[in-house]
Amino acid sequence: MLALSKTKPGPGADLVRMDVPRIAADELLIKVERASICGSDLPIYNWTAWAPKRLRLPMVFGHEFCGTVVEAGSATRDFHRGDLISVESHVYCGLCTQCRNGQRHVCRNLKILGIDTPGGFGEYARVPARCAWKHKDRSLAPVASLLEPIGNAVYAALCEEVVGKSVMVLGCGPQGLFAIGAAKAGGAKPVIAVEGAPYRMRMAKRMGADLVLSPNDPALRAKIEKASDGALDIVLEMSGAPPAIELGLKAVRSGGRLSAFGIPPRELSIDWANDVVFKGVRIMGIAGREVFKTWYTTDALLRSRTLDPRPVVTHRFPLRRFKKGFAVMNAKAKNCGKVVFEIGGV
Amino acid sequence: MLALSKTKPGPGADLVRMDVPRIAADELLIKVERASICGSDLPIYNWTAWAPKRLRLPMVFGHEFCGTVVEAGSATRDFHRGDLISVESHVYCGLCTQCRNGQRHVCRNLKILGIDTPGGFGEYARVPARCAWKHKDRSLAPVASLLEPIGNAVYAALCEEVVGKSVMVLGCGPQGLFAIGAAKAGGAKPVIAVEGAPYRMRMAKRMGADLVLSPNDPALRAKIEKASDGALDIVLEMSGAPPAIELGLKAVRSGGRLSAFGIPPRELSIDWANDVVFKGVRIMGIAGREVFKTWYTTDALLRSRTLDPRPVVTHRFPLRRFKKGFAVMNAKAKNCGKVVFEIGGV
Amino acid sequence: MLALSKTKPGPGADLVRMDVPRIAADELLIKVERASICGSDLPIYNWTAWAPKRLRLPMVFGHEFCGTVVEAGSATRDFHRGDLISVESHVYCGLCTQCRNGQRHVCRNLKILGIDTPGGFGEYARVPARCAWKHKDRSLAPVASLLEPIGNAVYAALCEEVVGKSVMVLGCGPQGLFAIGAAKAGGAKPVIAVEGAPYRMRMAKRMGADLVLSPNDPALRAKIEKASDGALDIVLEMSGAPPAIELGLKAVRSGGRLSAFGIPPRELSIDWANDVVFKGVRIMGIAGREVFKTWYTTDALLRSRTLDPRPVVTHRFPLRRFKKGFAVMNAKAKNCGKVVFEIGGV
Amino acid sequence: MLALSKTKPGPGADLVRMDVPRIAADELLIKVERASICGSDLPIYNWTAWAPKRLRLPMVFGHEFCGTVVEAGSATRDFHRGDLISVESHVYCGLCTQCRNGQRHVCRNLKILGIDTPGGFGEYARVPARCAWKHKDRSLAPVASLLEPIGNAVYAALCEEVVGKSVMVLGCGPQGLFAIGAAKAGGAKPVIAVEGAPYRMRMAKRMGADLVLSPNDPALRAKIEKASDGALDIVLEMSGAPPAIELGLKAVRSGGRLSAFGIPPRELSIDWANDVVFKGVRIMGIAGREVFKTWYTTDALLRSRTLDPRPVVTHRFPLRRFKKGFAVMNAKAKNCGKVVFEIGGV
Repeated sequence: MLALSKTKPGPGADLVRMDVPRIAADELLIKVERASICGSDLPIYNWTAWAPKRLRLPMVFGHEFCGTVVEAGSATRDFHRGDLISVESHVYCGLCTQCRNGQRHVCRNLKILGIDTPGGFGEYARVPARCAWKHKDRSLAPVASLLEPIGNAVYAALCEEVVGKSVMVLGCGPQGLFAIGAAKAGGAKPVIAVEGAPYRMRMAKRMGADLVLSPNDPALRAKIEKASDGALDIVLEMSGAPPAIELGLKAVRSGGRLSAFGIPPRELSIDWANDVVFKGVRIMGIAGREVFKTWYTTDALLRSRTLDPRPVVTHRFPLRRFKKGFAVMNAKAKNCGKVVFEIGGV
Repeated sequence: MLALSKTKPGPGADLVRMDVPRIAADELLIKVERASICGSDLPIYNWTAWAPKRLRLPMVFGHEFCGTVVEAGSATRDFHRGDLISVESHVYCGLCTQCRNGQRHVCRNLKILGIDTPGGFGEYARVPARCAWKHKDRSLAPVASLLEPIGNAVYAALCEEVVGKSVMVLGCGPQGLFAIGAAKAGGAKPVIAVEGAPYRMRMAKRMGADLVLSPNDPALRAKIEKASDGALDIVLEMSGAPPAIELGLKAVRSGGRLSAFGIPPRELSIDWANDVVFKGVRIMGIAGREVFKTWYTTDALLRSRTLDPRPVVTHRFPLRRFKKGFAVMNAKAKNCGKVVFEIGGV
Repeated sequence: MLALSKTKPGPGADLVRMDVPRIAADELLIKVERASICGSDLPIYNWTAWAPKRLRLPMVFGHEFCGTVVEAGSATRDFHRGDLISVESHVYCGLCTQCRNGQRHVCRNLKILGIDTPGGFGEYARVPARCAWKHKDRSLAPVASLLEPIGNAVYAALCEEVVGKSVMVLGCGPQGLFAIGAAKAGGAKPVIAVEGAPYRMRMAKRMGADLVLSPNDPALRAKIEKASDGALDIVLEMSGAPPAIELGLKAVRSGGRLSAFGIPPRELSIDWANDVVFKGVRIMGIAGREVFKTWYTTDALLRSRTLDPRPVVTHRFPLRRFKKGFAVMNAKAKNCGKVVFEIGGV
Repeated sequence: MLALSKTKPGPGADLVRMDVPRIAADELLIKVERASICGSDLPIYNWTAWAPKRLRLPMVFGHEFCGTVVEAGSATRDFHRGDLISVESHVYCGLCTQCRNGQRHVCRNLKILGIDTPGGFGEYARVPARCAWKHKDRSLAPVASLLEPIGNAVYAALCEEVVGKSVMVLGCGPQGLFAIGAAKAGGAKPVIAVEGAPYRMRMAKRMGADLVLSPNDPALRAKIEKASDGALDIVLEMSGAPPAIELGLKAVRSGGRLSAFGIPPRELSIDWANDVVFKGVRIMGIAGREVFKTWYTTDALLRSRTLDPRPVVTHRFPLRRFKKGFAVMNAKAKNCGKVVFEIGGV
C-alpha cells in the first residue's frame, strides 16, 4: 500500500510503499477513505516544536481519518466488513483511574494514533476496535474524517450547557470555526468570534457567528462588553495565542467559564489573583473529546444538520498531492479552513 | 459604642468611641459577640498591599463576625430581637447576572463588609438582612464568627464531590485547616496536607490529615504520588504561594480538579499547554462562598460535628487587646490558627 | 380600580371596582399591562377541583402578568417608576432549606399570587419586589405576561442539557408548545410532539416540532421508536393525562429523563419495577421555574428570538371581555393557544 | 468442576460436576474464591416470580463473585494469572446509546451473568474481561464478592452528593445496610434507617445509622421530621415494599431526591401530582452501578475503611452447604445479613 511516512528528521514527508498492516484480535483493518490535516500535523511535517522529541521514525502520521472495515479481529464485537467508521485517535488503556471514571480522553497511558503508533495518512490503517466509531449509514461519509476535530470543538463548547448564554470564540482556525457551530447548535446567543485573518473572519460569519471582531480592533473590549450585555458567560479559547488567553481571562464575567483548548508556544504569565480567584471562574482544560459521550453528541448534531461543518472544508486533494495540502496549511495568509485528503473510494 | 477603626493611613488601628449605627428598613442592627481576624485584615492593619488603594478612611474593619439582633428593620422578614446570626460579608446586589444565576458570591456590584462599608470589629454593626444567616439555636455561638471563613473552605473543598477521592491541601493556615476538615467530612481519602510551619503541621494532623508533608521535603512529589496511589484527584490551593500553585498544577492527575483560593502576591508563570490543556484539568476560582448553599452545608457539618473547627481557634482576646491579636497573626513563626475577639456577652 | 374577582363560590367571576392596593416597604405597586390565563385559572373560574379547598374569597386571581412600576416601596432596591416588570408568581420566604439551596420555586412556605394572595387580573397589583423580574427595555412588552409560563417550559425542557438529544413533548397546550420551542432552542433533535387536537397539532409544527403524532395513532410507539433512532433520550410530560404519563415512562430509553409537569386528575398506577428502577431513569418533578436562573435563560432566549412564543398567543381581549376569554379556554375543541388580557396601556 | 446449577424447574438447585468452561479471546477464566447470595437469587432458587420466565435451564447461577485469574484470553489487556478480580455482573455491549454515554449499567443489550449466561456459584467461571475489576492487591479478598452489591448501594446513595444532608434509608437488608454505610462515608447527617426486623435494626445501628425506626412506629413521620430538622433531603428506597415507597415520596422534602432501588412485587398507585410534580423531587431509578465509576468509588471507600462492610456478612458456608445458605436467606425472621459461599482457596 501507499502511505505518507515521516521517514527521516527534517521538513517534509515521503509517500512510500509498504505492507498492509496486520491486525491483532482486538483491532480492525480499515481501508482509509479520507484523512484530514490537523494543526498538530504541521510540527510533524515541518519537524519543529515538540515533534522531534516525541516521534520515533519512520512513522505514518495523520490522526483524523475514516474508512471502511475490511477485516475485523476475532475478538471484536459488532464490526463487519463494509462498516464505515471514524477513528478516535486517543488510544486509551481502559484500566487507569481516568478510564474508569469516564475520562478516557486523558488516559494515563494514552497513545495517539499517527504520533505514537502508525496513523491514517495511508491506504490502510489498523485501529483498535475500542477506538472505532461505527456509523449507522454512509450519510456522513464526506465529513467522516472530521468527527475527531469537531469532537474537540463540541467538547470545548458544550462541556457545560450554553443555551441562552453569551459565548466568545477566540481564534477561527478550523477548531474555532467548529466551536462556533457547536455553540450555535447548543443555543448560545450571541456567539462572538475574534479572528485576525480576513478569510477566516468571513468563514466565522458563515458558521453562524453573530459578531466577528478583529483582535486588533482598538474598541475590542468595549464591543465584546456591549454584545454580551455586560456579562460574557463563556470563552472558548481555540487559538493558543498568549494575548488571546489573556483577553479571555479578562473578558469573561465573574463566575463564567473559559475552555482552554489552544496550545500556547511557551509558558504564560497569568494574573491568578484577579483573573482566576476573585472572579470565581472555571477554567476547563480540553484535550480531545469524551469517549464516546462527545462522539454521540457530535454524531447527532451532524446527522440532524444542526451543525454543518462543510463550509470549513476548503480544500480536498488526493494523497499524492500531499505537498500542496501542507503548503496550503503552512501559508501565512491562512486562506484555508480544513484540508482533506481523499484517499480511497468505496 | 467602641469599635476598632482604621482612622488614618499607616500601620495599626484605633479603638474609638462612636455612635451606634442607624439601620435602614432592610437592615439589622446586631450586638457583635465575636469577630475573628481574617488573613485579609492584615494588609488593612499593616497598611500594605491592596489596602491603601481600596479603603476609604475612617473605616471600622473586620468581616468575620456574629452577634445577636437588637433591632430588625421594618422591611425585614423573620428576624427578631435575640436571634443569633452569622454574617455573610459579601453584600450582593441581587439583580446582576451572577446574582440571578446562583452566584451571588461574585456579584458584579459586590461590596464587602469591613472593607467597602463598616464591618464587625465593634460593639454593634449594621448588616443587610439578606446577608444574615440566622441560627436555629445558640449551639454554634462559640464558633459563629467562623462560618464565613469555614464557608470558603467548604466551598473550595466541596464545590465538586470528594467522596472516595484523594485530596491534597496546600497551605495550613486557618483556611487550609478548615479545608482539611471539609474534605474529610465529605469522605475524601486520603487527605494529604503540605505545610512548612511545624506548629501548623501538627494542627493539620489534628484536623484529620492522613499525611502531612513539608514543602521542603526532597521526596515530596514521590510521597504525594505514593499516598494518592498514583492519581491525585483534587488539589485545594489555600496558600497563594506561587511554588504551591505550581506544585498543585503539576501534581494533580489528568482530568482532576484544582480549587484556587489562595492569593499570590504577583502574576504567575503557568505551563498552560502541559498543566492545563493536555491534562484536561478543571481550575475552579474560589471567592467567598455560595450564598446560601455553602452556608447550609457548613451549618449542617458544624451542627453534626462532622466538621469540628475548634482546634483551629488558638487564641481568644477581648477587643481592647487587639494589638496582641494582630501581633500573633503577624508573627513570622505562624504559631497560631485563628484569632477570635470576644466582644459582647449575651 | 377595576379587577376580576372571585367574589363567591360557583362558576364565573366578577369585574368589580375596588381600591388600588397599598404596598409594604418591600413591595412594588404595578400598573398591569397584560395578564394571561393559565390552565390553573380554570378550576378557579369554573370552581372545580382543588379551587374551593384552596381559595379564600373574595380573591382577585390571575398569576401570569406584567406591568410598569408606579410605586416602589422604600426598602426596595433598583426599581423605579416606569420600569417594566414581569412577575414571578411563587412568593418564596427566602429562609427555608429550599430557598437557601437554590430551590426557591419549591419554598416550604410558598404563597402563590392570584391564589393565596391577590393577583394580576386587575388594573393595579402589589408585588413583592423579590418576585419582580425587571426588563432591560420594553422590547419584550408584548409577551411579558408569558415569561412565567414560558419559564415552566424552559425549566421542564432544559433542567438537564438537551443538545443533540431526542425529545418527546406530550401534550401541546400552551405549556407543551412552549416546551417544543425551548427544546429546539437548546439544540434537541428531533423534537417529537404528541397531541390529539388538530388545531394544536398544527401549532406544534409551527413551534418547530420535527414530527407531530396523534396519541390515537395505532403505530404511535413504532413511529416514536423510528424517529428517535431507537433511543428516546428525554420526555417532557406537559399534559397530565394518565395515558400520556404511562406512554412517557414506557417510551423513554433506559437511562433517560422524564420531566413531570402535567397534573393528573387522580392517583396513577405505575410499573415502578420496570419503568423506573430497571430502566434507571430520572423523573424530574417540575413546579414553577428556578428563581431567577430559569428567568435569566428565558429572557435571553426571548430577546435573541431563539425562542419565539408569539405563535402561541392566539387570542387577546380587554379585561372587560373576560367571559369570552374563559369561554375560549374552556371550549372542548381546544382551538386556542394562550389567551391574553390587554389591561393597561403605557 | 463442581457448580451449583438450576437443572430443572421447581424449588432448589443441584451441585453438579461439569467441565471447566472454555473462554473466548476477550474473556477471563477465573477460579472462584467467594460468591454471595443476592436477593434476586432467591426467585431463581425458589423458582418464583420472574425467574421461570427469564431463565433457560440448566443454568449455573450466582452473580456476586470474585476469584483469581487462571487464564486470560489472547485479546485481553493487563490481566494476568493470579490477579484477584471482582465481577461486574452486567455484561454490556459497549456500542448502544447508553454504553456510549457513560450508562453501561443500563445497556440496551444487557446480559446478566448468572441469569442470562452462566454465573459464579461454581469452582470456575468465565467472565468477559470488560466486566472484570482488577484489584491492586489482595487486601479486599475477604469481601471481594461484595463489590457488586455494595456498588448498588454506593450508586443509590452517592449518585448525587450527600455531604451535610439528611438521608433516610428504607429497608435494612444487605443493600440497605450498605447504603447506610455509603451515606455515612459521603458525609450525610443524620442517616435515619427504617426497618421492622429487630435483628436488622441492630445491624443498621452497627453500620452507623444515627436513628433506627420501625415502620410500625405510630410516630414514625413525626420522628423523621424531627430528626431531619423538618427537611429530609434524600430518601434511599432499598426495600421495594409499596408502603415504604409511599413513605419515601411523602417524607422527602420538596426539591429533594429519592433513589429507587427496591423492586416492588406489583404496580404501585402514586400521587403523581402532589408527590412528584408539586414537590419538584428527583426520582432516580437505580439498576446496578456505573461501570466503572461506581466501582472506583466503592474500591476507594473499602480500601480506606471509610465504608466497612464486614458487619453485614453474617454467614459463611462452603458451597456444598448451599441449602443451609439459602435457608438462612429464605427465613421469615430475617436474622441475617449477607450469606457468602467460600468456594476456592488461593
